[in-house]
Amino acid sequence: MKKKVAIIGAGGYVGSELLRLLLFHDGVEVTKAISLENIGENVAVVHKNLQNLTSLCFSNEPADKIAKEVDLILFALPHCLAMNMVPKAIGKAKIIDLSADYRIENPKTYEQFYKKHSSPQLIKEFIYGFPEFNKEEVKKAENIANPGCFPTGALLALMPLAKENMLTDHVIVDAKTGSSGSGVHPGLGTHHSERAEDFKAYKVLKHQHGPEIEQELKKANKKEFDFTFVTHSAPMIRGIFITAYVFLEKETTKEELEKIYKKYYEKEPFVRIVEQARSTVVKGTNFCDISIACQGKKAVITTAVDNLVKGAAGTAVQNMNLMLGFEETKGLMFPGTHP
Amino acid sequence: MKKKVAIIGAGGYVGSELLRLLLFHDGVEVTKAISLENIGENVAVVHKNLQNLTSLCFSNEPADKIAKEVDLILFALPHCLAMNMVPKAIGKAKIIDLSADYRIENPKTYEQFYKKHSSPQLIKEFIYGFPEFNKEEVKKAENIANPGCFPTGALLALMPLAKENMLTDHVIVDAKTGSSGSGVHPGLGTHHSERAEDFKAYKVLKHQHGPEIEQELKKANKKEFDFTFVTHSAPMIRGIFITAYVFLEKETTKEELEKIYKKYYEKEPFVRIVEQARSTVVKGTNFCDISIACQGKKAVITTAVDNLVKGAAGTAVQNMNLMLGFEETKGLMFPGTHP
Amino acid sequence: MKKKVAIIGAGGYVGSELLRLLLFHDGVEVTKAISLENIGENVAVVHKNLQNLTSLCFSNEPADKIAKEVDLILFALPHCLAMNMVPKAIGKAKIIDLSADYRIENPKTYEQFYKKHSSPQLIKEFIYGFPEFNKEEVKKAENIANPGCFPTGALLALMPLAKENMLTDHVIVDAKTGSSGSGVHPGLGTHHSERAEDFKAYKVLKHQHGPEIEQELKKANKKEFDFTFVTHSAPMIRGIFITAYVFLEKETTKEELEKIYKKYYEKEPFVRIVEQARSTVVKGTNFCDISIACQGKKAVITTAVDNLVKGAAGTAVQNMNLMLGFEETKGLMFPGTHP
Amino acid sequence: MKKKVAIIGAGGYVGSELLRLLLFHDGVEVTKAISLENIGENVAVVHKNLQNLTSLCFSNEPADKIAKEVDLILFALPHCLAMNMVPKAIGKAKIIDLSADYRIENPKTYEQFYKKHSSPQLIKEFIYGFPEFNKEEVKKAENIANPGCFPTGALLALMPLAKENMLTDHVIVDAKTGSSGSGVHPGLGTHHSERAEDFKAYKVLKHQHGPEIEQELKKANKKEFDFTFVTHSAPMIRGIFITAYVFLEKETTKEELEKIYKKYYEKEPFVRIVEQARSTVVKGTNFCDISIACQGKKAVITTAVDNLVKGAAGTAVQNMNLMLGFEETKGLMFPGTHP
Repeated sequence: MKKKVAIIGAGGYVGSELLRLLLFHDGVEVTKAISLENIGENVAVVHKNLQNLTSLCFSNEPADKIAKEVDLILFALPHCLAMNMVPKAIGKAKIIDLSADYRIENPKTYEQFYKKHSSPQLIKEFIYGFPEFNKEEVKKAENIANPGCFPTGALLALMPLAKENMLTDHVIVDAKTGSSGSGVHPGLGTHHSERAEDFKAYKVLKHQHGPEIEQELKKANKKEFDFTFVTHSAPMIRGIFITAYVFLEKETTKEELEKIYKKYYEKEPFVRIVEQARSTVVKGTNFCDISIACQGKKAVITTAVDNLVKGAAGTAVQNMNLMLGFEETKGLMFPGTHP
Repeated sequence: MKKKVAIIGAGGYVGSELLRLLLFHDGVEVTKAISLENIGENVAVVHKNLQNLTSLCFSNEPADKIAKEVDLILFALPHCLAMNMVPKAIGKAKIIDLSADYRIENPKTYEQFYKKHSSPQLIKEFIYGFPEFNKEEVKKAENIANPGCFPTGALLALMPLAKENMLTDHVIVDAKTGSSGSGVHPGLGTHHSERAEDFKAYKVLKHQHGPEIEQELKKANKKEFDFTFVTHSAPMIRGIFITAYVFLEKETTKEELEKIYKKYYEKEPFVRIVEQARSTVVKGTNFCDISIACQGKKAVITTAVDNLVKGAAGTAVQNMNLMLGFEETKGLMFPGTHP
Repeated sequence: MKKKVAIIGAGGYVGSELLRLLLFHDGVEVTKAISLENIGENVAVVHKNLQNLTSLCFSNEPADKIAKEVDLILFALPHCLAMNMVPKAIGKAKIIDLSADYRIENPKTYEQFYKKHSSPQLIKEFIYGFPEFNKEEVKKAENIANPGCFPTGALLALMPLAKENMLTDHVIVDAKTGSSGSGVHPGLGTHHSERAEDFKAYKVLKHQHGPEIEQELKKANKKEFDFTFVTHSAPMIRGIFITAYVFLEKETTKEELEKIYKKYYEKEPFVRIVEQARSTVVKGTNFCDISIACQGKKAVITTAVDNLVKGAAGTAVQNMNLMLGFEETKGLMFPGTHP
Repeated sequence: MKKKVAIIGAGGYVGSELLRLLLFHDGVEVTKAISLENIGENVAVVHKNLQNLTSLCFSNEPADKIAKEVDLILFALPHCLAMNMVPKAIGKAKIIDLSADYRIENPKTYEQFYKKHSSPQLIKEFIYGFPEFNKEEVKKAENIANPGCFPTGALLALMPLAKENMLTDHVIVDAKTGSSGSGVHPGLGTHHSERAEDFKAYKVLKHQHGPEIEQELKKANKKEFDFTFVTHSAPMIRGIFITAYVFLEKETTKEELEKIYKKYYEKEPFVRIVEQARSTVVKGTNFCDISIACQGKKAVITTAVDNLVKGAAGTAVQNMNLMLGFEETKGLMFPGTHP
């Protein structure tokens, strides 16, 4: 018998990808798709790719009521909105929250980059759902805080080194994203005439995903290091590309580094160590492609993920699979296209 | 001494191109740039390309007051808004209206495609400013209705045949545009994630530029023909590309058609008959590139213009030059880039 | 037990899509991937999307030898090359040829648009594999000529009207394509700096897919009509968008036309009648979206397909499913993404 | 009377921009446009933007002969080719070499990143033509080595700090470029279907522009620092975007840094300190936009230039103006477009 799941925030781009993945997932049935903007309409009215493929309609019901009727709820709400909705469902159903609201352990840090947290006491009820590094915890978790898009790419680039305590000196993450990371609502920054063909940096040294990356790296890496994070808008719809700069304590080679990365990722179904990471190669998929360069004490790790899949909905389904006892790869093991 | 001009509606994309062209025009001084959204700010706050290049600021003053202080006003307002502002300036200064409001001679047609006209009696005070075909009239005009973007490309494609009464049977204009034609305000249709990479038709058989094209062609062509117009959104910022299908009464050749086109365009500085019209080749310029194919009685004329330059601000400056006694090409005779 | 299939021409973009679809297809095993350019290499060396997902390597073996070892061969070779390879396999295995070489019934027409046919006597051994209109024939066929990319979009737009003998007067197909239709080999026309942002027409009135479309329409439609076909390059990778203009004998309505289209497509799993056909909505999928507009006697039918999927590899797999006794939709019933 | 100039290598993209700028430059006449590929053809056959605008044709003549007939030669040849041509003209006319061949002072470094230098003894005859920092030297120079595209963006970002000896610890330059930097000849990396929508790093830690940037910074900065350079391909035609990371010896503020930058750039006509550097804002222009962020001891400087203008042909014309006694801004002081 299929497990029942609900998607709260199904009208946005992350909701769109959750629907694409879960409507064709063997093990679950999406029984609710909550979105305030199109109540009563078929989900394909917003997500045209689903035309003719589903009879599911958007609805609006309280989170606590939904929680009683399903096995698991995926919250795909904007940050600061989630923390007002999620608490109602806690303890009643398994939860995966794709917002940032339960990812930052220190409420003061959260407040500094987002706003005052309305339920700080609940943060510790959440496991950071990063299956490449805490699969067993995820399997047992009731509540998952699903990683952010930039953190997914950055942590997959740097966690093997952090686990080996090889992060010292400065660690710089230069990140580039496509426009879909800005969500479904139009704005000047994502107006086609302004955004197409344009490359720019934004929120330089101030992006809210910085502390999330730093938190996870510093928990893993026993040595001190200084962390720098800058985000850029690239003229593309999908994709996050991370260039991570690391200055090692001793000289090493690409081969030695690859050996370390293989140690952590060899058995991971969605991480591929490749010659050249490229955003289009992972587009639409749950893969993270990693490429390693090294020169003396200097290492440059690049990763490419699809911000809406591996960087959001895909990892959420991966976490869901683990939480509900399915095979980790269920419904996710498909390639992108070439070209 | 320089002539004084004002731009009303200087905060939009057509306003942007008027500023780019006129701030570096030898013969005129832009003394007013009216925009309600950024009063008091330097124009470069909105049009970043002008940073460090001008001290001009946006202001807001009544059109009648402005009219007394300048030689010519360029109105770059959305259609249906212009007709409420333009009348205040008529008779007080020369006027170029870049909206559709004084381009449609029949107020009922206007009402059908736009809304009820608020000053239908003034329509006849305007000359349709199409310098390739009525240069002498434009020179003497007090009030110019500047052609629409699609009409510019379509009419340059078809007017030579219309003048020769060669339009009969069906005439089809299949038009494609970049996103900048939708203007400076964000919306779902121009949201980068939706628009980039996408091709679609819109307002099929219902676009408001259809009657404008048909009106001008039917005034020129003595024979009856049936006119069809369909518009498409292409995944680019700039450019209008027109594919015009004509079914001639007798067989002809590409060479014979080119001869006709040369007759009308040989002396026109901004019309080039080329092997293959391409949107990027005319990007940022006042050129219209025309290419001709013919097979038996069938002719296909393609044109490429930049919707904001030859399709709006560039032709307006060309008209302005003629109205103010300057050389027609002043400030406009520059090429695009390759690539 | 799985059926064995071979792909000859697996290094190109159509080969790429055949691999993507067939490596994850339940009913078949790809036992051979022939490509002269990368013999011995894993297919993922060329098609990076398949990294870590297959152990299949490119090889080179004679077509007749392969034919004895597999149930079906898919030929994804350039036109004029296929006709030298395909004959060796005929009669030894089922064949799907994705080139144009066995699609044109009249060898003289073929010669006019391609070159002299080397095996004209074999053309009649092939069934034009258009499952929406000749499913039963395809099921029984030994050799399938798979439709071209433009013909797929154009015929799905016009065949219902042709079947009803509603094509008269002029029928115009204005077609737009992405760059992947030009294949995997770089050239000036697909050089990024030249192609990105550019819109242009090419091979105006001379494109080799014209006679294929005309042939199929004229076989279906009992009345005479004049056919016109023009192709354009749009600044996108994937997608064919067709705008078809039809002039009917009597006035009709959108609703009446939709009724006709539903009659033919209601049970077709990959044809959707939608409000607005868009290239991105069908990207990566086997769907064809169709939209209908009508005004008096004038109808405009627009269709969007992915040129490499529904326009090539997807329809080939659909034909293969029918030929091998599988469900028609096997391995093909997945949506695209939004955005 | 106009000065005579020749362009050797006029068929490429840098040649294209030199032609665009110099054919409309008041002070010079382009008397020769050398390109082996299209001898005898009008330059507009290759550079379609120039159709109808010039009668200049490509020719081929020996560099020494040309040198006697013109005041100045601009060499826009690929690196390693220039060093075989340039020596023939030295001493006979003023020279601006846009290749890398006379930019690297140490022939061994050159050999490591390019190939063995064929005229190392001539390197010292060239002045690195970086007018924002050595205008007076440029004015007197006979031979100019024009900076590379990445070095232009990187050095404008970092030279003020280098001049103040503020570069210490690690200095990282994360660079992104459009496809036009790869030149006019098609290849797999610039094939539209592969390049559009794609983001990737290339030549990581090995790009040949690294030593050029390091050389100039280390000549200016009295303290030791470690330099890291990584280049990326962004899905756009034009533009270089530089993100430079600097770790200062003491805490500072954005305001203090801006004061330093203003000290060096206030009088520089083509450098603008802006809130947010964006590639599209400088597209087609000779401007470099610079934006500064700072947090404690950490500074991030971003710059945007057009790789073919400020990053190549524009700076060359700026140098030419200085060398020939014209105003530095002649023919270059025009804005880009918005959008």
